[in-house]
Amino acid sequence: MTGFEINHKLLLDSHRLGRFHLCHLLLHNNAALPWFILVPETDVEDLLDLSEELRIVAMNEASNVSRFIKRELNYPKINFAAIGNVVPQLHLHVVGRRPDDPCWPAPVWGNLTETIDYSATRIDEITFSLAQRYGLDAER
Amino acid sequence: MTGFEINHKLLLDSHRLGRFHLCHLLLHNNAALPWFILVPETDVEDLLDLSEELRIVAMNEASNVSRFIKRELNYPKINFAAIGNVVPQLHLHVVGRRPDDPCWPAPVWGNLTETIDYSATRIDEITFSLAQRYGLDAER
Repeated sequence: MTGFEINHKLLLDSHRLGRFHLCHLLLHNNAALPWFILVPETDVEDLLDLSEELRIVAMNEASNVSRFIKRELNYPKINFAAIGNVVPQLHLHVVGRRPDDPCWPAPVWGNLTETIDYSATRIDEITFSLAQRYGLDAER
Repeated sequence: MTGFEINHKLLLDSHRLGRFHLCHLLLHNNAALPWFILVPETDVEDLLDLSEELRIVAMNEASNVSRFIKRELNYPKINFAAIGNVVPQLHLHVVGRRPDDPCWPAPVWGNLTETIDYSATRIDEITFSLAQRYGLDAER
């Protein structure tokens, strides 16, 4: 999509890791739990309004991120959501959860008060693993 | 799936409307906004762990409900989520939202304090419309 830009509020809250075929991949700034955000290159605002073809691609890319979180980061549970009441640009939350995380069992949105920063090294490790085994085209 | 049963906590919070090919359809008891819950007949607990084939069916059925909410109930925005931290059985939330709803722009989970009951007539109207035009096999 020509001229596609990721919403600035999403970028303020996250680190930009790269992209899959359809979706850009962001990592939420808060390292208290693994919280990824996929931004498909589309101007459709609701996941369920996407064409079936694009929705399949977006969900497969979200599924790659889910597998990464489960296998590499050892979180047994994934919370998945497309909300977008504040930022209308379509974006998909893929969040690793476990009973010892800082806001279990509440959903993260509006409830995650603990804040931890990622180190640059940790972001590089995550990006490298996603690029090696989960189809991410890392940002140069 | 033989012997499939919907989790009793989901049933306590909702009215059972019927089913699509894969998913049972529940309507959350709280009529403050249109909140539907799809329960696919599967023992997989995370949406992103479903096979691609089943996930496509589940998402298409959720998309039917989304179209119903937008076209028939006049809500312009849909919040979609698979959370399941409290009830592990896979269930998909499809929630109609608009700026004048009682918890906009917060997500409904944990934030919807206003409670309104559905009348039996209203539940019948919703079920009828979903069955007539959106592929629901209504409960007899």
